[in-house]
Amino acid sequence: MNRPAGSLTTTVELINTGTELLLGRTLNTHQQWLCRQLSDHGYTVKRQVAVPDTGEDIHAAVREALTRADLVITTGGLGPTSDDVTRERVAELLGVTLGPHTTVERRLEAFYRLRNRRMPPRAALQTLVPEGATVLFNDHGTAPGLVMSVPAGRFRPNGSWLAMLPGPARELRPMFNTQLLPLIQQHCPPPTSLLCRTLRTTGLPESEVEARIAPHLEPLLRSGLELGYCARPGEVDIRLAAHGSEAAQQVEAAHKLVSDELGEFIFGEGAAELEEVVIGLLRDHRETLAVAESCTGGHLADRLTRVPGASEVFLGGWIPYSNALKHAALGVPAECLAAHGAVSEPVARSMAEGARRIAQASFALAITGIAGPGGGTPDKPVGTVFIALSQANSTVVLNPRNAWDRATFKAVTSQQALELLRRALLRKPNPASSP
Amino acid sequence: MNRPAGSLTTTVELINTGTELLLGRTLNTHQQWLCRQLSDHGYTVKRQVAVPDTGEDIHAAVREALTRADLVITTGGLGPTSDDVTRERVAELLGVTLGPHTTVERRLEAFYRLRNRRMPPRAALQTLVPEGATVLFNDHGTAPGLVMSVPAGRFRPNGSWLAMLPGPARELRPMFNTQLLPLIQQHCPPPTSLLCRTLRTTGLPESEVEARIAPHLEPLLRSGLELGYCARPGEVDIRLAAHGSEAAQQVEAAHKLVSDELGEFIFGEGAAELEEVVIGLLRDHRETLAVAESCTGGHLADRLTRVPGASEVFLGGWIPYSNALKHAALGVPAECLAAHGAVSEPVARSMAEGARRIAQASFALAITGIAGPGGGTPDKPVGTVFIALSQANSTVVLNPRNAWDRATFKAVTSQQALELLRRALLRKPNPASSP
Repeated sequence: MNRPAGSLTTTVELINTGTELLLGRTLNTHQQWLCRQLSDHGYTVKRQVAVPDTGEDIHAAVREALTRADLVITTGGLGPTSDDVTRERVAELLGVTLGPHTTVERRLEAFYRLRNRRMPPRAALQTLVPEGATVLFNDHGTAPGLVMSVPAGRFRPNGSWLAMLPGPARELRPMFNTQLLPLIQQHCPPPTSLLCRTLRTTGLPESEVEARIAPHLEPLLRSGLELGYCARPGEVDIRLAAHGSEAAQQVEAAHKLVSDELGEFIFGEGAAELEEVVIGLLRDHRETLAVAESCTGGHLADRLTRVPGASEVFLGGWIPYSNALKHAALGVPAECLAAHGAVSEPVARSMAEGARRIAQASFALAITGIAGPGGGTPDKPVGTVFIALSQANSTVVLNPRNAWDRATFKAVTSQQALELLRRALLRKPNPASSP
Repeated sequence: MNRPAGSLTTTVELINTGTELLLGRTLNTHQQWLCRQLSDHGYTVKRQVAVPDTGEDIHAAVREALTRADLVITTGGLGPTSDDVTRERVAELLGVTLGPHTTVERRLEAFYRLRNRRMPPRAALQTLVPEGATVLFNDHGTAPGLVMSVPAGRFRPNGSWLAMLPGPARELRPMFNTQLLPLIQQHCPPPTSLLCRTLRTTGLPESEVEARIAPHLEPLLRSGLELGYCARPGEVDIRLAAHGSEAAQQVEAAHKLVSDELGEFIFGEGAAELEEVVIGLLRDHRETLAVAESCTGGHLADRLTRVPGASEVFLGGWIPYSNALKHAALGVPAECLAAHGAVSEPVARSMAEGARRIAQASFALAITGIAGPGGGTPDKPVGTVFIALSQANSTVVLNPRNAWDRATFKAVTSQQALELLRRALLRKPNPASSP
């Protein structure tokens, strides 16, 4: 790609195709994800448009965007079904022919062979590539992405670039990161370098994070630092960004001020998830973990096992949803269950100690509580939860009240459990510095 | 509002204003919510646009939409802060003046009085209303919504309606439902009612779904039926929609044709998730379930326990990630692990039977496999997986090859396990029809 001559910034527009978007059947997560990736790399999306899967609407939207933008990115409509018309309509708009692409054909055949599946006849449509297009290979699906150069004078005095990405998120995201973004960065560098750093915190609400850090950042904000917050269940991200030659010093100074105020509430930077940080600490300390989850129903284990290589330190777990299984699988005494109820401090403690003993792990986390919407009592209302962490010689139990909907309950409770373990691991001597 | 003369349908466009949308810091939930409400009432949104909070971008987007649409709805930019410029820019575009509105002033003063808060000076900006506008009162915040008539001949031969809604969802949603929608329905009746039905399938790839049903739907498509597909990991949705007085018969006829072709590949309708269907079937049949998941690491149990009331039928599970735990917790014989390896048909079988026995469940699902990216061998490459379903007197084992990224592997594998159980439950005699 060549930087369109005469432009001071790279103007980017995004077109999401899909009738389901306009019918409100699907949430447009591509918009947020792509805009976020682009802005983190210094590109500002100037306009986003969603249009239905009809040829005319796609044609009109792409045509209009090409009169305004240096780079137009489309999502969707590259698959094999009859409502996938982006490739054909764009070829028509640009006046180029479609022809079969040998490498795409070979990869498509291999895709089906690897999965022991017969290739349906319509799938071959995906091997058609517009004349002159660069192919973005699809490592997670069948439809390749396409990048085309639109010559100067065709729709605007400067030329444009048009990139087409497939609709499924698991195909679009790696294709953008590993193939399209490097192409964009090479040929359309952002006008000034934007330095953006995200600090990730857990354990404080957004207003508390802001109250603690904003006054200290005032002078930097006046000299151009940009500050943003993003709150999710159990997490608040702090976004520090700066442009220009002073950017590195400004972001560094802001990072230091935020660290001084928030200390251990910061669990990581960038895209680090809390479960990745915890798996990394367990690995560094050569410790192992088992879990026993009742009310979170496997969500904590699911998070831990999202991390590649988790099996080095995560031995496994139990989901003793019924009382009988708490006793049969983890050895929680029947008297303890009868005397205190399944949602209680002694049961959480017993679950953690049982899990640690049976799995022969150095740490175990146990969770028992009432996720809701049913099951609450005046004594133990919905949201009551006990989180136990057992290690050699000690077991501690937290008792937060997480009165949320069911999905948020699981997210927040598993976050608190991971954070309890992270803080315990931070207290341990650094294995690298021990003899 | 008067129905614009000569139009056969009401064309609607949606404009979402907000720099945070283009920076990817916020997910645009307004789009899905408003599109869904409108389509449920028979209005089809033809285009959605997101632009930053700058005056020029809002001006350009509203101007363009008014050349095309009968009804333009904007969200955001009506509040009191410096980046709220929609009201001013629209007044300027339409050439009308802004003036204070007595009722809005009174309501704003009451809003602050009720909360014992001083009214900030900038808040008064929200009492300014464009000449001739209809006010939509805000029962959950401070900024009123506004509806304006754009005269015929100004931007297009027919006139248009322009509605402006405030940005916060808790203000926008009730304002739309109780004030804007009745206005739209009264003055822009939808040409014909839209009937939309979504059938959810699992077990067939998207192209195969289409190959099976599309030829049979041809005659209905020619007479106006709309057909769409949406593929997610392990699932393909089929959307059947029709307008007008024949809509119910058309959708019903299409549903019957699709059912005839796809039969049990259809697991539900509308927003039903496979785990909800399975929990419902278990409840209907008075059966219970336990799970033992190695490579999916709790994802299957997490899905099952997302369903409120899952505890009635889901007894719990194991995540025997390590080989030692497969033996210690589930009784998988050490010789079996040594002879066949943890990822094998006999180990999957033994895990399922152990889980069923210990939990005293009527059904148990077990999963063992290689999620990747590491751990593959020539014999057992990444994506190899064994899924066992144990019930009284029989255990069956599937051996698909799920060569995907880690997250998709978990989604697809848990889907196959749930589907294996759903098919088994469908084979059982209906408990309602037994004596």
